[in-house]
Formats: sequence, structure tokens, C-alpha cells
Amino acid sequence: MYLLERDRTVEESVEDVCRRWGGEFHIEVVDSWKGCIRDWGGKVVHLTMYGLPVDDVIGEIRGSGEDILVVVGSEKVPGDVYRMADYNVAVGNQPHSEISALAIFLDRYYEGEGMKRDFGGSMRIIPSKEGKRVRTS
Amino acid sequence: MYLLERDRTVEESVEDVCRRWGGEFHIEVVDSWKGCIRDWGGKVVHLTMYGLPVDDVIGEIRGSGEDILVVVGSEKVPGDVYRMADYNVAVGNQPHSEISALAIFLDRYYEGEGMKRDFGGSMRIIPSKEGKRVRTS
Repeated sequence: MYLLERDRTVEESVEDVCRRWGGEFHIEVVDSWKGCIRDWGGKVVHLTMYGLPVDDVIGEIRGSGEDILVVVGSEKVPGDVYRMADYNVAVGNQPHSEISALAIFLDRYYEGEGMKRDFGGSMRIIPSKEGKRVRTS
Repeated sequence: MYLLERDRTVEESVEDVCRRWGGEFHIEVVDSWKGCIRDWGGKVVHLTMYGLPVDDVIGEIRGSGEDILVVVGSEKVPGDVYRMADYNVAVGNQPHSEISALAIFLDRYYEGEGMKRDFGGSMRIIPSKEGKRVRTS
């Protein structure tokens, strides 16, 4: 995850989750979003409600076999992002949460299997009808 | 949308989106979450990472044909919610964003068609490869 501004709260929260639940998420603070996009070795996907429907382009994106950089803008996104992205992708053409757009994009990208992934953490949930069951190893 | 505490910012934002983009979303402030769940006429679905995998139960939930109240807890959720819910549903058994969980749940519930829905607003996006195209009627 590349962030334009250092945010210790986000960093600590991600580190804490990884320590307990696994996964290799890490955060890097970058000086320039343009440099970050330009230097990316694979495809750049910008999530925006103005883009092409995710279901129309996800096959092509997945099929590229390249690493994907997903760009999620929080407020007004500069026009250059639209031009620099390989794909401007809409998760619905209505206003929506950017975090939700990212979740649905990843869900489509991994064809629903992402949710079932084992991140190798020391804590694991045993799914239950009611209550909380956690196994710690 | 039922909220336990009045939040004018959320209300105004939702009203503003509906005015421009359509949809019948509205917000009601309730005194008691227990009353809200108890008085609901249909099924109550509580989204929690401790629950049963969404893909295992979504068919049964959709098949009930009843109205669905989705309960999303922001911080520590009281144990009673787990017991009062008809379904405790996990959108992945890892820590995640509650908003994303709601998005994926709705996406599964509507079998991917929710995103394509026309909310009848005066503003509509024309999906494009690059840039922003909006039609106002």
C-alpha cells in the first residue's frame, strides 16, 4: 500500500493485523503519486465511478498476468490519474465508498476466492452460527 | 438505514446523493437497537467475521423472500446481537472494513446485478475509458 502522507495510525493498525492474522501487507510512504504510477511495472487500474463497468474489463485485466496497482482516490482525483491509468474501472456508476469499490474489485479479480484465502496468521476464526470461536496457534 | 445516534453529516450526504443520483435511501434514528431488531418483520443478518461464510448461507437468505435487515457493528458488538440475528454472516474470516462487508454481502445478495441498477436519478454517468461523462436530465 502506497500512501502519499505518513499516517502512523494506519501503519500500526495494518502491522498489528498482520502480526496476529497473517498476510504480507505493508505500507510505503511515497513523495509523488505520479512517480509511483509511472514506475509501476505492471497494469495500473484506477477505480472511479466514471470508468468502464468492472465486469466488462476484469477478464482482460486478470488475463494480462501482470501485477496490478489499484489507485483509489479519496477526494477530487487529478485528471492525470485518468490519463496515466491503463484502466479506469467503475464498480457501479453511482457514488459509493472507495473502500467498497476496492473490495468488490478484488473480489472480482480473485473470482470470489480471495475471501477464502489463508493468510497464515497465528489467529484463525472457526466460522460459527453464533458467537466467536478463535483458534490461536 | 437505522442509526443509533443522529448524525446530520451522514443524513445530509445521503439526502444530497439521492436528490442527484436517485434511490430511496433514507435514515431513521432509533432509540434502541434491540427494539429495532426485535420489531423487524423479516430476516436479520448480522455481518461479522466470526460468522458462517456468506457463500454458504446467501442462497438460503435470498430464498427466504423476506425483507432483510443487515446489522453492521462499528466497534465491539454486544453478544445479544449474535443471539438475536437469524444469521451471523462472515464476508471472509479476517479483519476487514464493515462497509466492504456490506458491499460484498449486497453484491452476493443481488447476484452481481445491484451494481447495474438504475436508481432513476437526474444525473447519470456515461461509462468511459477516460475522463468523466455525465448526462443531466
